[in-house]
Amino acid sequence: MGGDYGPSVVVPAALRSLSRHPDLHLILVGDKTRLQEALASEQASENPRLTIHHASQQVMMDEEPGLALRNKKDSSMRVAINLVKEGEAQACVSAGNTGALVATARFVLKMIPGISRPAIIAALPSTTEACLSVRMLDLGGNVECTAEHLLQFALIGSTLTSAVEKIEAPSVALLNVGAESIKGNDLVKEAAPLLEAHPDINYVGFVEGDEIYSGNVRVIVCDGFVGNVALKTSEGVAKTLNYFMKRAFNRNLLTRLVAAIARPVLRSGLKSFDPKRYNGASLLGLNGIVIKSHGGADALAYSYAIEEALHEARSNIVKKITHKLTQLANESIAT
Amino acid sequence: MGGDYGPSVVVPAALRSLSRHPDLHLILVGDKTRLQEALASEQASENPRLTIHHASQQVMMDEEPGLALRNKKDSSMRVAINLVKEGEAQACVSAGNTGALVATARFVLKMIPGISRPAIIAALPSTTEACLSVRMLDLGGNVECTAEHLLQFALIGSTLTSAVEKIEAPSVALLNVGAESIKGNDLVKEAAPLLEAHPDINYVGFVEGDEIYSGNVRVIVCDGFVGNVALKTSEGVAKTLNYFMKRAFNRNLLTRLVAAIARPVLRSGLKSFDPKRYNGASLLGLNGIVIKSHGGADALAYSYAIEEALHEARSNIVKKITHKLTQLANESIAT
Repeated sequence: MGGDYGPSVVVPAALRSLSRHPDLHLILVGDKTRLQEALASEQASENPRLTIHHASQQVMMDEEPGLALRNKKDSSMRVAINLVKEGEAQACVSAGNTGALVATARFVLKMIPGISRPAIIAALPSTTEACLSVRMLDLGGNVECTAEHLLQFALIGSTLTSAVEKIEAPSVALLNVGAESIKGNDLVKEAAPLLEAHPDINYVGFVEGDEIYSGNVRVIVCDGFVGNVALKTSEGVAKTLNYFMKRAFNRNLLTRLVAAIARPVLRSGLKSFDPKRYNGASLLGLNGIVIKSHGGADALAYSYAIEEALHEARSNIVKKITHKLTQLANESIAT
Repeated sequence: MGGDYGPSVVVPAALRSLSRHPDLHLILVGDKTRLQEALASEQASENPRLTIHHASQQVMMDEEPGLALRNKKDSSMRVAINLVKEGEAQACVSAGNTGALVATARFVLKMIPGISRPAIIAALPSTTEACLSVRMLDLGGNVECTAEHLLQFALIGSTLTSAVEKIEAPSVALLNVGAESIKGNDLVKEAAPLLEAHPDINYVGFVEGDEIYSGNVRVIVCDGFVGNVALKTSEGVAKTLNYFMKRAFNRNLLTRLVAAIARPVLRSGLKSFDPKRYNGASLLGLNGIVIKSHGGADALAYSYAIEEALHEARSNIVKKITHKLTQLANESIAT
């Protein structure tokens, strides 16, 4: 029921993913009547792989997370996460209120021991053919971090990337203001030797902001404040460039004609950077898979978030991350 | 002599600025022979407003700042900053080694009392006609900041913006991960009430990364780590989008034809976002004006950096900032 469009986006996205993945089962959680209407308007036939699970409430996009948690015990979000907890679903996907989703997921699923708050990780586009996506974390879950947090992020980010992308020892870098080892704030300077020393992290050094999309590394680690600023700044730049291009194309009749000719080429080119294709951020560190779709996602974008959930469920990511973090906890006790 | 191109960029940039500003005087500092050759190759005639000041050394782009400071006492950078110190020049512009420029400027000019390291501020494009540029600081001078630093940045950033852009009480925002007051790390949460309470700061609240280029605010304040990441991420996104567009336009004969038609329109549109037009970051907090040009700037871009120096010199910015900071220091003693 969440996001800017609710069932009118979630239902066609679900139908798209079901047709693309013959072994996928989906449970639509929310107002039964509205979900049935949305299915009817998509002319969806009966599908044994698609069920509806009624939930009488919904969390509003601007609702205070604590209040949502206390007062909305039958919200679509809460019920969907309960299904993961009870093992009836292997993953939950939501385009709803991020704060409420994080709070509810923490409350219901609990964190893997050693992690205090979920780290948000997402795939980002890259200009390198051999490395079509880069994963970056934390994108806003933990705005105040220690070097140990960054070590955890490196470990769980590289575990996820390795499992989902099926590559051994993905390269991991710390986001910094310079590539030289003397550069940076205390946080990254303290974290660097921890990542360097850990046998399960293929640490390659510092990267600067302009290298995020270069594809030179697979996993980029930063604190949640910096990651959130970098991600949103990227969105802002893309929007700004789009605005300036549109304005130039709308200047007069001739430029509008040029636009009509150039638009298909530009669109196909910029598709590679389309945030839609990278929709679906994971809340890592929970005892279960929870994927956050962008609130403004359309059906295609939402279906990518569903597919991220599918990949993570298939690769048994929660168990792998739990194992890594237990190892890490034991190592720090041992030292 | 600095930057990726040395006199071959600086000399034509100087000639351009001289022809645009009839009351501008420029001193070219560096190897006399090379500067004369560069002037000759531009067919520059004798100009009473252009003089050459010989310097026998130059700081290399990858030279360690401390070594440059100790061993290169007759470098073009050092001599140019000396001229500012001695009052023979009102400002220094350099495309050279940033670390060495900051170290040399601090050593020669000294900081305004109350400031420990220069804050780097630059103008950025905006999509709002009424607010064509936004200024953001710190872009990397101070990677470890306290709330008091952010208060200083707000004060000096708004003093500069007010003086150069000739607007009273420019709006000032803190860069954060959300617009609500409960959002953020300890640093911005502590800084917000300080900015809010200060009578000389028109504080308007938090902005997120995607609002940097919106033109909703005039001055954006953040610590040097976050600012540097945001700026470089922006460069990275612009480069990435450019790469994807070029690739689409190069796909085949037809798309190359479309490119030939669309390129002039796109170029004119993206000109507004062209980093060249925003070249010239100021090192604020020094007892003198020092402008850092991008190392890769061409002559047009470099001339914008010269013009930033001119605007700042004309608006008597050092005196204004010194005044504000002395006030601030007295206030904190009084409280």
